[in-house]
Amino acid sequence: MPDPAQPAFILVRPQMGENIGAAARAMLNFGLRRMRIVDPRDGWPNPKAVAMASGAAGPVLDFAGVFADVPAAVADCDFVFATTARGRELPKPIYTPEAAMTEARRRIVAGEKVGILFGPERTGLENDDITRANAIITVPVNPDFFSLNLAQAVLLSAYEYSRHTLESVPLDPGLAGHEPATAVDVEKWGDHFEGRLEEAGFFHPPEKAPMMKRNLRNMWTRFAMTRSEVQMLHGALKQLMRPRG
Amino acid sequence: MPDPAQPAFILVRPQMGENIGAAARAMLNFGLRRMRIVDPRDGWPNPKAVAMASGAAGPVLDFAGVFADVPAAVADCDFVFATTARGRELPKPIYTPEAAMTEARRRIVAGEKVGILFGPERTGLENDDITRANAIITVPVNPDFFSLNLAQAVLLSAYEYSRHTLESVPLDPGLAGHEPATAVDVEKWGDHFEGRLEEAGFFHPPEKAPMMKRNLRNMWTRFAMTRSEVQMLHGALKQLMRPRG
Repeated sequence: MPDPAQPAFILVRPQMGENIGAAARAMLNFGLRRMRIVDPRDGWPNPKAVAMASGAAGPVLDFAGVFADVPAAVADCDFVFATTARGRELPKPIYTPEAAMTEARRRIVAGEKVGILFGPERTGLENDDITRANAIITVPVNPDFFSLNLAQAVLLSAYEYSRHTLESVPLDPGLAGHEPATAVDVEKWGDHFEGRLEEAGFFHPPEKAPMMKRNLRNMWTRFAMTRSEVQMLHGALKQLMRPRG
Repeated sequence: MPDPAQPAFILVRPQMGENIGAAARAMLNFGLRRMRIVDPRDGWPNPKAVAMASGAAGPVLDFAGVFADVPAAVADCDFVFATTARGRELPKPIYTPEAAMTEARRRIVAGEKVGILFGPERTGLENDDITRANAIITVPVNPDFFSLNLAQAVLLSAYEYSRHTLESVPLDPGLAGHEPATAVDVEKWGDHFEGRLEEAGFFHPPEKAPMMKRNLRNMWTRFAMTRSEVQMLHGALKQLMRPRG
């Protein structure tokens, strides 16, 4: 069984089964077993993935959760990283793999659940995926040449995660003991706020609506809200929307 | 031309041309260009290596030196590492990739020449090869599962070598170049939101109002908003508050 006290490696819309199997092998090299798969192109299970995992890494695939979309895949995560070379236009903290995995260990030791998104082979993560993440991981590469494949990107994060031992990680509760909002909390709050704005005719002109919505989602995800803050915001918006006069 | 002030990545008796090309790509991701090849199984040049390097990494292959054996390949090196999971029976210092590449950088800065040996795909380096090295690099992997391929082993060393130099490229710590909101911006937004909530009768019961207001203020201040996000929130709230119906 996958250890919940490990980050979930979430492959978003992977194309080739071979690459899913290679990612499982890359993870297992560093003792990591929690894989999730979002909308794999060739369905699931995938015999080519199993063949590439070649036995020993097979259980990583057997226990992999398969999800229809990114929000579902990160629903129980307290903190989500998106691995991407792009995304710099979104206001979102950018971590090196080392800094990101140090932060991931810190949060996991503190009892949080952490997910790491990896994009499809050709295109990488889309901005809509990245807005669901709290932070970005960018591998510091040669600015003139970038060609990490999926398993290699997974390998570097798995390597960095396992490079140091858990006990060497200083405990530093980011929210001073307050329970962090889950991804589902944030998603629902985003839905609530967006829905009321939609009704109020905020998303105008229509061609700008997708960008406006994306900016809002990105903002809420980045804020690292506590659970009670999200509840407070729901209550505030409800109250604002009550019939007046 | 390859920069002599870089470690030489020495592929010992590599079998598949594709893997030589993939190793060149892995190196170039981190700006490393000095490859040497010892007794490649399928001769040299190798069209499959060139195809895998696919253009951009081609010059790494063009400038690769080809040698008949390991002693010839390391003849001009002042210090040689051997990458191997075995070799523990040999009395030889064992480094993690991080420690090894820190040592390599130190020596190169001091004017020394450093080489790193990588073994053939199936068998890895033989003890005869390892005895030619001054130290061993062992990737700290899961003791029950080790399956790094040649390009992945090269990738981890290249990544570690360049991690510190490339990391000094400033990664934006938070807002990806977006202008942060000033304290006045945040204060005004807090006033705006609180004012509308006050009108809507949100702060109830009255004895809890100060705490509720404090929690809201605290939240907005903590969020590290950008200027345009604050403007977006003002616009959203204004739109929500317009007369309905």
